[in-house]
Amino acid sequence: MLEQINKLIEARNIKELRILTEDANAADLADAIEGLDPDKRVRLFRFLHKDMAAEVFAYLSPDTKEELVSQLTAPELGSIVDELFLDDAADLVEEMPPDVVRRILESANPETRRGINQLLQYQEDSAGSIMTTEYIELRPDMTVGESFKHIRDVGTDKETLYTCYVVNPAKILIGVVTVRTMLLSQYADKIGDIMSATNLIKVNTNDDREKVTELFQKYDFIALPVVDSEGHLVGIVTIDDAMEVLEEESTEDFHKMAAIVPFDDPYLDTGILELAKKRILWLMVLMISATLSGQIITNYQSVFAAIPALIASIPMLMDTGGNAGSQSSTLVIRGIAVGELTLKDALKVLFKELPVSFLVGGGLAIVNFIYKYALSGDLLLSLTVGISLFATVIFAQTVGGMLPLLARALGFDPALMAAPIVTTIVDAGSLTMYFAIASLIMGV
Amino acid sequence: MLEQINKLIEARNIKELRILTEDANAADLADAIEGLDPDKRVRLFRFLHKDMAAEVFAYLSPDTKEELVSQLTAPELGSIVDELFLDDAADLVEEMPPDVVRRILESANPETRRGINQLLQYQEDSAGSIMTTEYIELRPDMTVGESFKHIRDVGTDKETLYTCYVVNPAKILIGVVTVRTMLLSQYADKIGDIMSATNLIKVNTNDDREKVTELFQKYDFIALPVVDSEGHLVGIVTIDDAMEVLEEESTEDFHKMAAIVPFDDPYLDTGILELAKKRILWLMVLMISATLSGQIITNYQSVFAAIPALIASIPMLMDTGGNAGSQSSTLVIRGIAVGELTLKDALKVLFKELPVSFLVGGGLAIVNFIYKYALSGDLLLSLTVGISLFATVIFAQTVGGMLPLLARALGFDPALMAAPIVTTIVDAGSLTMYFAIASLIMGV
Repeated sequence: MLEQINKLIEARNIKELRILTEDANAADLADAIEGLDPDKRVRLFRFLHKDMAAEVFAYLSPDTKEELVSQLTAPELGSIVDELFLDDAADLVEEMPPDVVRRILESANPETRRGINQLLQYQEDSAGSIMTTEYIELRPDMTVGESFKHIRDVGTDKETLYTCYVVNPAKILIGVVTVRTMLLSQYADKIGDIMSATNLIKVNTNDDREKVTELFQKYDFIALPVVDSEGHLVGIVTIDDAMEVLEEESTEDFHKMAAIVPFDDPYLDTGILELAKKRILWLMVLMISATLSGQIITNYQSVFAAIPALIASIPMLMDTGGNAGSQSSTLVIRGIAVGELTLKDALKVLFKELPVSFLVGGGLAIVNFIYKYALSGDLLLSLTVGISLFATVIFAQTVGGMLPLLARALGFDPALMAAPIVTTIVDAGSLTMYFAIASLIMGV
Repeated sequence: MLEQINKLIEARNIKELRILTEDANAADLADAIEGLDPDKRVRLFRFLHKDMAAEVFAYLSPDTKEELVSQLTAPELGSIVDELFLDDAADLVEEMPPDVVRRILESANPETRRGINQLLQYQEDSAGSIMTTEYIELRPDMTVGESFKHIRDVGTDKETLYTCYVVNPAKILIGVVTVRTMLLSQYADKIGDIMSATNLIKVNTNDDREKVTELFQKYDFIALPVVDSEGHLVGIVTIDDAMEVLEEESTEDFHKMAAIVPFDDPYLDTGILELAKKRILWLMVLMISATLSGQIITNYQSVFAAIPALIASIPMLMDTGGNAGSQSSTLVIRGIAVGELTLKDALKVLFKELPVSFLVGGGLAIVNFIYKYALSGDLLLSLTVGISLFATVIFAQTVGGMLPLLARALGFDPALMAAPIVTTIVDAGSLTMYFAIASLIMGV
């Protein structure tokens, strides 16, 4: 597609270009535009019908958006911003630099500007920040036929029209009716009779956006109403936006668990200084806390001075302890993230992790003992390492399983707090046990 | 709600119970049922209207489903299975033990049975395995008004009716039309004139289900058509199922990156033996490969015999190298998972990771040098540790950033292969560099 467009622009084959762009899918056209030279980008973009231009624009990368905004005239820009769904326009304003934002807001019509500003007032990560104010509102005394006519009249710029919201004259949300229900009813049926009016699932503008994704996962909806503190309907969140949030939240958790300060932009779009900043913080904390393990080694200097062969197993014990601990903490942190585990499950987790760690630690210790003994022929050394490994795995899994729940109970983010602290505690604990067991068994 | 239901069942207050259950949301009722005593569960479940019973059933946990199936009579079970959406029924058959499956299939009517069997033939993790065969099919010569009437006649058991699929007499998919488009058209318009017929986005039954979620993320659809190898429409995937897949795939990646063999069931529902099995495999591999680091330490025994203080920094170097490497591999693995990075970005990743590692490694090394020197007063030792740390971070980030891409290029799963191998390589590499630098600087 990119090649074809390139050729058509060079050949100035307007007719073919028109046919191609009219039939294309907006997401595919956006992909093609990303691949074009900057000057061709604007030429192609100017050429698109304004509905299509707005739709394509929403799919572009922040950099390309910024470039286009700087090259379009104010009326061109205005017509695109006005055509965008309001939540996309608000996202645009949020991701552009201040001077670009000024141009965007100046070019938009007053109504769009008001809508954007209204959306921007909600806190980041709140339900309000991901909602759109473009939805279909019905009254309970309308019939299905009248509603269909109403949808036909006002529906074109609504992000979804499949779930319609029924409000009373005070704009309080009193019911929800899907187009599905309407299609399966008679044209003469009254909305008030077919709408769901009890147990309305809704969120408040200030609710965390994670609550929104949880509701989408629990109930199979395609849109959720958002109300203010008095119950007035102020917007809706559609499932495609919730899906994006779900992906962003997962990425955030991946970052946290790898000791990275989370960031939103794609990896390749994030600058080197920014990346270094997001990564050095936790590495620094972990580096300093790892000197605790070094201190323990220094304290037991007499033990490994007497038996230098003990040192060779330190990396294996540390790695295995770290891995076993991170297995447990990952399972528990993920369980918390998807809503399966809460603090009241702490005992259940403990009674799961303890027997598992006996099995896993026992299995590893036996294998380790056998090959250590086969290689070294030193029974006491092999026994020391095997028993230490067994104790390390049990300790690591218990700490790894319990700490995320404890972090949660103390109001910390389990993903952010648990992984680094687990490593530090497990390292220090396993080395201490190792030297203690060596002293006992090998008598040093 | 649970308490209220409990009381009503005990008081045998059928009338109140009827009102409560008729108005309730299926997902909430399912939650309440999970909390009831087993005997009350069946009593409440029998009491539900059959549409509601089927809907509630789909939300229950596998254990509760199994328990209910064993207690319901064949006709009761049959009416529920027949009411389930076909993809939910197929999921049920997949997760139940063989004897329960036999009961389910015997109780279902022949048509349902055929539908379930058809869905079950598709490979796990394929688009076919998550699709449903219940969708609305239209012909191009129908009008919008006729289509609405058709939807009203056949729509009740279709999972979505918002996107309708247009097929020719040979059942080949020739177009897609949304209810949105129909609602915004006139009742007399012909489907063939308003449908999208070019650039149809569709998947093949054998495509990976990850491709399905990628398409849902790229295009804002609520359903995607699934065709067989000849282009015949055979099913659709709806966005709520795609969202579930997205969450499952993320969980799978979390498992892999923590060196766990991925599993589908919730943590608390997974048995202790099963959990131990999923975890011991990679721990064993990693434990054995960690002895490589031990071997390196043994080889350089003369170096640390001469300067025992070198040993105290081994945990810090290993931990920091491991953390820096896992930061890089996590960013790249996540980039691959969300479709941002492919093999052709390898150079871009390298030119990102290298400068970042110089900044991060430099920052850490300077801080480490300062406090090491302040604590020990040993310039050469502090210099050795600082330079080794610098080299370790650069090495770790390069390996961490490149290995997932290499694994992908070789056809391995980046999440599964990269993390363990990164640890092993980084440990061995950093210890070797440490001792080499120590020999150079401290002359041992």
